[in-house]
Amino acid sequence: MRFLIIGGDAAGMSAASRAKRHSPDMEAIVLEKTSDVSYSACGMPYNIANSSRDVEDLVVRTAQAFRDKQGIDLRTGHEARAIDPQAKTVTGMTSQGKDFSFTYDKLLIATGGSPIIPDVEGMDNPGILPLKSLDDARKIKAFITASNVKKAVILGMGYVGLEMCEALVERGVEVAMVKPGLFFLPWMDRDLAEQVQKEVESHGVKLHLGHDLTKVEKTASGLTITCPGLSLEADLLIPAIGITPNSQMAVKAGLETSVGGSISVDRGLKTSDENIYAAGDCADAYHVVTGKKTWIPLALIANRAGWAVADNVNGKNVELPGIVGSAVFKVFDLEVARTGLNMREAEKTGFDPASVTIKARSRAHSHPGNSTIWVHMVGDKKSGRLLGIQMVGKEGVAHRINAGAVALHNHMTVDGFSLTDMAYAPPFGPVWDPLLTAANQLVKKL
Amino acid sequence: MRFLIIGGDAAGMSAASRAKRHSPDMEAIVLEKTSDVSYSACGMPYNIANSSRDVEDLVVRTAQAFRDKQGIDLRTGHEARAIDPQAKTVTGMTSQGKDFSFTYDKLLIATGGSPIIPDVEGMDNPGILPLKSLDDARKIKAFITASNVKKAVILGMGYVGLEMCEALVERGVEVAMVKPGLFFLPWMDRDLAEQVQKEVESHGVKLHLGHDLTKVEKTASGLTITCPGLSLEADLLIPAIGITPNSQMAVKAGLETSVGGSISVDRGLKTSDENIYAAGDCADAYHVVTGKKTWIPLALIANRAGWAVADNVNGKNVELPGIVGSAVFKVFDLEVARTGLNMREAEKTGFDPASVTIKARSRAHSHPGNSTIWVHMVGDKKSGRLLGIQMVGKEGVAHRINAGAVALHNHMTVDGFSLTDMAYAPPFGPVWDPLLTAANQLVKKL
Repeated sequence: MRFLIIGGDAAGMSAASRAKRHSPDMEAIVLEKTSDVSYSACGMPYNIANSSRDVEDLVVRTAQAFRDKQGIDLRTGHEARAIDPQAKTVTGMTSQGKDFSFTYDKLLIATGGSPIIPDVEGMDNPGILPLKSLDDARKIKAFITASNVKKAVILGMGYVGLEMCEALVERGVEVAMVKPGLFFLPWMDRDLAEQVQKEVESHGVKLHLGHDLTKVEKTASGLTITCPGLSLEADLLIPAIGITPNSQMAVKAGLETSVGGSISVDRGLKTSDENIYAAGDCADAYHVVTGKKTWIPLALIANRAGWAVADNVNGKNVELPGIVGSAVFKVFDLEVARTGLNMREAEKTGFDPASVTIKARSRAHSHPGNSTIWVHMVGDKKSGRLLGIQMVGKEGVAHRINAGAVALHNHMTVDGFSLTDMAYAPPFGPVWDPLLTAANQLVKKL
Repeated sequence: MRFLIIGGDAAGMSAASRAKRHSPDMEAIVLEKTSDVSYSACGMPYNIANSSRDVEDLVVRTAQAFRDKQGIDLRTGHEARAIDPQAKTVTGMTSQGKDFSFTYDKLLIATGGSPIIPDVEGMDNPGILPLKSLDDARKIKAFITASNVKKAVILGMGYVGLEMCEALVERGVEVAMVKPGLFFLPWMDRDLAEQVQKEVESHGVKLHLGHDLTKVEKTASGLTITCPGLSLEADLLIPAIGITPNSQMAVKAGLETSVGGSISVDRGLKTSDENIYAAGDCADAYHVVTGKKTWIPLALIANRAGWAVADNVNGKNVELPGIVGSAVFKVFDLEVARTGLNMREAEKTGFDPASVTIKARSRAHSHPGNSTIWVHMVGDKKSGRLLGIQMVGKEGVAHRINAGAVALHNHMTVDGFSLTDMAYAPPFGPVWDPLLTAANQLVKKL
């Protein structure tokens, strides 16, 4: 049995490792176009923030360790270019320019995603550096030092953009952020988004909303970033307007795609071809709350999908329940988290939603060090179901959101959630947890 | 309609407030024997820890505010002594020594609990001060200052004892703790309990396990606490070996009792008498995991039960799903939390349990500030169900436990829990949340 894997990142290496662990005799070949496998991609902004830390600290396991300790036939510098589902072969080219071809019994496409680069003039200038791969992190970090970066512009205000914003501010860089949309964190309740926006601006970051990029020009000292009615000077420009799934090869092979061009997979991670799986940032998933397909490229989803593929390749019949869209990020002194649907998503997917936004305290009445926790909660008037939660606060947000995620996995009603027995002690929250207070309020509106 | 409430603490005042809010015309009379209502009992150790903070800061709402703003007929200094369920009257005596008698349509017994005082010689000496009421906190705080307390002994090593231990250490007091049992935190997995024990001992606290108290004697300079083979000198002795439900009046009135002598109530908080409810530390509850009665006196349970009684007195038909035994406390630099059953409780209640204990990290690989999180997880081999979780760590424990609590409310399997979509970012945990890692390990043993 030959298990061939295209892509040696989270999903690909998780699948290879687990497949070999459970079936040591299987042949597991991984084709990775770069020389990096198994690193903490989400940790890159935090590494970049600290000039004294080595980018290589982000490597969790080296390619050689995968080969020697786990018996995985890991081919770095191997770029897959085409899949032939009839012949069950993958062809491509090595970084030395040699053609290669591998047959497979089972194939996993784990090609990840690529940063979206705006299609405007001048995006090929030096000093324009997206952050997706470990090599991107190396380039950004080297560039900051070599070019003595003093000013940066970030395109986009999503969580990668915000994490990079914080990292650059920590490095003493003056940061401006630009996006075409008029709303900061448009998926978020306005009251909560306002807290995050204030936090970012309070660190001297200039947020330019409603500005479409027109062009980028190289100047004597750096770059000029031009939008209608706005011109910004910068040494470094980071495009962080999102990623797109690397599904081109799958499309050419005739595989079905879905949301955002991601490769369509069933609950067992199988594509429309019997012998081909897809997992990670290139593949879609089922949303537990809506029951519909969604595409949310995040690390846990990729790792878990990789495991499920390995189990299925090994003859098990694993089906994943799907995802609920849980995410958290830190921006300066704030924790920002979400799970499930927001009002607009709930409306679009056929619910009749109502929501509340409350302010609660992060610690008990009179306990020192108290701060505000904002909770936005969405429920369905028809079924009474909990649909989604958003939270913002200086503490107690990141892990609290998971109680909501578990509730969503169980299709709990808001009333049922409001009656759950949550732990209380004065240093950690009020007697009525902020989540319970929000649920108690929302119950009245359903 | 007259709604009479015995006890003006968490359950009683929650019930009175909510009943009046929903039915402003109802007559709500609260009989409270002390002069204090609505204070943060759990916050008392943290207040005692700080000499410059006023005990009165713990008061959330004054008696006068309940009277003036909510129209509650709150009678402080009124000690109820007997219930006549046939005549539907409650009789008692005021702090001025006057008899009183009230009739009721519906009665709530919210008499709370009392600290257990060991029945040994010398427990009536000065300087022996339990901590249950706000007045207890006033006395302890005044005594520490007035007697210039340098050495204290705490009887018991439960969470109130440990919180008081930390408070006294912060005040510069040398603390020894004594208990008859041989095991520190006997309800906890040994590996986890060991972490907590080490933390306490690392702050210079002497833990004397396996020592039964024999007597306490007054000396010229303070107290001598004597156990077989152990003699301790102290200025202050705090008995913190637990509380007992104040159910004597209910027993005399012929009401049924259950676990630990607590007043037996149904899911609607009704006692064995049609017109009498009980809520808070004096009443029992259903355990969601076992389906059986339990008695866990905690603040959220009391508040929620008070609300449910108010709704039922107001003609609704509210039934509470029960509790899962979620609790958290802080001791020095550790967060300690639990939800659900431990191995012994699971065995006793008819499950066929298996468990794992894992060590995980509080932040992502290579993220600064990382510390160890210990997770102990219990599941049922017969049904695959998740039964309980315990956690210890310097951060990320207190709120994480609630994801487990919500899973228990939904009777989730360990496998189902292991597939939940939890939020991830490097400052807050590894890609695989410690809870997921524990579940992934436990699934293999079920």
